[in-house]
Amino acid sequence: MAEAVQSRLETEELQQNLSEVQALLRDGERPGELRAKLDALHPADIAYILEALPPEERLRVWDLVKADRDGDILVEVSDAVRESLIASMNSAELVAAAETLEADELADIAPDLPPAVIEEVVQSLPVEERERLRAALSYPEGTVGALMGFDHVAVRDDVTLEAATRYLRRLDELPDHTDQLFVVDREQRLKGTLPLARLIVSDLHLQVAGVIVPESVQLRPEDSAEDAANAFERYDLISAPVVDADGRLIGRLTVDAVVDYIRLRSAESQLAEAGLRHEEDVFASVLDSFKNRWAWLAVNLVTAFIASRVIGVFEQSIAQLVALAALMPIVAGIGGNSGNQTVTMIVRALALGQIQGSYWTKLLAKELGVALLNGVVWGTLLGAIAYLLYGRLALGAVMALAMILNLMLAAAAGVAIPWLRARRGRDPAPGSSVLITAVTDSGGFFIFLGLATLFLV
Amino acid sequence: MAEAVQSRLETEELQQNLSEVQALLRDGERPGELRAKLDALHPADIAYILEALPPEERLRVWDLVKADRDGDILVEVSDAVRESLIASMNSAELVAAAETLEADELADIAPDLPPAVIEEVVQSLPVEERERLRAALSYPEGTVGALMGFDHVAVRDDVTLEAATRYLRRLDELPDHTDQLFVVDREQRLKGTLPLARLIVSDLHLQVAGVIVPESVQLRPEDSAEDAANAFERYDLISAPVVDADGRLIGRLTVDAVVDYIRLRSAESQLAEAGLRHEEDVFASVLDSFKNRWAWLAVNLVTAFIASRVIGVFEQSIAQLVALAALMPIVAGIGGNSGNQTVTMIVRALALGQIQGSYWTKLLAKELGVALLNGVVWGTLLGAIAYLLYGRLALGAVMALAMILNLMLAAAAGVAIPWLRARRGRDPAPGSSVLITAVTDSGGFFIFLGLATLFLV
Repeated sequence: MAEAVQSRLETEELQQNLSEVQALLRDGERPGELRAKLDALHPADIAYILEALPPEERLRVWDLVKADRDGDILVEVSDAVRESLIASMNSAELVAAAETLEADELADIAPDLPPAVIEEVVQSLPVEERERLRAALSYPEGTVGALMGFDHVAVRDDVTLEAATRYLRRLDELPDHTDQLFVVDREQRLKGTLPLARLIVSDLHLQVAGVIVPESVQLRPEDSAEDAANAFERYDLISAPVVDADGRLIGRLTVDAVVDYIRLRSAESQLAEAGLRHEEDVFASVLDSFKNRWAWLAVNLVTAFIASRVIGVFEQSIAQLVALAALMPIVAGIGGNSGNQTVTMIVRALALGQIQGSYWTKLLAKELGVALLNGVVWGTLLGAIAYLLYGRLALGAVMALAMILNLMLAAAAGVAIPWLRARRGRDPAPGSSVLITAVTDSGGFFIFLGLATLFLV
Repeated sequence: MAEAVQSRLETEELQQNLSEVQALLRDGERPGELRAKLDALHPADIAYILEALPPEERLRVWDLVKADRDGDILVEVSDAVRESLIASMNSAELVAAAETLEADELADIAPDLPPAVIEEVVQSLPVEERERLRAALSYPEGTVGALMGFDHVAVRDDVTLEAATRYLRRLDELPDHTDQLFVVDREQRLKGTLPLARLIVSDLHLQVAGVIVPESVQLRPEDSAEDAANAFERYDLISAPVVDADGRLIGRLTVDAVVDYIRLRSAESQLAEAGLRHEEDVFASVLDSFKNRWAWLAVNLVTAFIASRVIGVFEQSIAQLVALAALMPIVAGIGGNSGNQTVTMIVRALALGQIQGSYWTKLLAKELGVALLNGVVWGTLLGAIAYLLYGRLALGAVMALAMILNLMLAAAAGVAIPWLRARRGRDPAPGSSVLITAVTDSGGFFIFLGLATLFLV
């Protein structure tokens, strides 16, 4: 059940909380007041404050948070901040925090915990929970198994709605996001679902079997989380049962986990495009930031070096006509931008499953058409400018032709790169931008300087 | 209530559907079979097929879809595909399709409908629905009002749970995503919520007022959709009441609308980063694609031209030392990549509200530190390579120094650009990448060629 939270949850309110905490921290005289303020906040709101504070102040706040809430807050914060919090806790504190969590939550933060702590927590768990934790830890990231929870309510299909309702009353409280009960037979095999909304409006003397929704979305733990998220979006789901190979109910995926997953995926793809390996604590140390960023800069360095060597081949031509040096980055830059547009559009269409085998040639033809049109328009404009600047008609013509050719190269590579990756069953997104830029830079310099060498010098 | 859908909804299953439809289309002899196949599919699945087909085949399928499902499918497809479908329908068909929709759904597709059709539909609506449609259309995109629906269930606080349950039974079916009832007083002012899960487990003789959750998240129609989405994510909500300035219940926001919004936002920001103005139909005509893409290419052209003129200033130096032409794109390129990392990290932290006023200088110091470290590492490496290639120690030193300075410029601009935009209350994301690249290109050329002119020629 959602905790009672304040009535207006705007960003301003969150920032208001943060400012108050900061004022109390600066003051430093009233730890009791700060503690009281923190106790009144939802774990997610405390997580927000921890994310926004620099390391020293973050740890001061963390020390004041009641120990029995540590677990809930650790689940809410980002990986980077969680690491910094866990580093400040001793084993006993970590074990105490971990013990307040359910198996699926524990599995989420387990990668950041010391092995000894996990071992101790596992020992303290009842057998059933221990099995669940083991199961949750066994599914790789990006699968339904890694996102699912275990706190669903199942009822048998051969009882009356009245008996089912009595059973629910005895539970006292239903798990969060219980929009439907899962209906199983004696062997725990899933027969269907019983939405609460249907239970409430139905005659209580009916049998569960008479009112269930027999065929709704069922997931397997090994299904991809992306596919499951698509199903939640497509069919507007709140929860879906997860079954094993024999059709036995083993867990439940809920929309809150799906929303978190979608957000995280979207953040990750944005970060990956910019060459950050994972989400970064804004207040990370210089060294940690360097570690997070160096890899892609190194890749970029190699591609830039290759492009530089392409130019090196034509140094003779540049020495004779130095205007080439000033004009060549334009050809390369526009090609890169245009290629990135093509790649982004195609990667997105692929993610939505909109491109089937036979349509790739159609798509290539279309992208080449757009590139030709762009090339003629912008190439003519830039050719004219080059002519006006340097007074050589042939230079303008070479500029225009190079633009057209590099834009068509960008279009071809923009289709080919995701196509090749998709054919090998790989995610077409990461690094596409770096690859296309490498092609259009080196290609652009080569085309422009090559044409210039042929026709101008 | 969710329609009964097939039990396995993997991507493969969707593609299986698509292949079958394509085979039946190619065959062409059995329209009855194709129609039967389509009738068996969920509207969202038909939308998927329509998105994946080229224009001619898309319209052939669209013609075969039962008219009474047109509305539901139009709500599901993307803007670009919706336009192509609507263009193929006459006014009578559009009115018939629109009349099957609820006010909030109608508001979603209204921008794509001809005004005469909207007028006719509005006339046919009962007064209450007409008011709702008008309200829904009046809220700008990106607000809660534009996302909310009107099909919630409200109960009075002064009745017993038994009476409330009787009332629900009379409704026969509850609206989708009814996880809680909204509790109101005689003046329709929201007093709290009553989760179904709590209703089911509570003693029916209690009063509604005795079991309500008094203070949960309440939204206003003018609240930002982004803030609302954050609240849904933070507090794991399924639905939230929307109230007017007097606290009167006027609508409801549900998690499915929030999920759609998050997905759309994430798609839009990815597309905007690559300089696409809006989502593009993969099979759009060459001219439509050109229109979607030309604007950012034009911006890029201007920035590339400026960078080119910076090089133009130093043509004299390049003529004397042509190696500069080959080396300068490396300095500019790495600077752009590094600046993009900084901007992406900061834009994301800003979106999560993690950066407060006083931390900007701290952040700038950290980013400059990372840039210095990167500059020393990569600058030394590249300087050494330049020395080995061209045999001039001074050239290597200039290369290394230019790398350090351009990376620090990239860091400063990477902090300053989002800071300036955030200070003016603008969304810091769009165009940040273009701006930072413009700074690091022109800046990188200027720094490198300037240093070379001072020390080498």
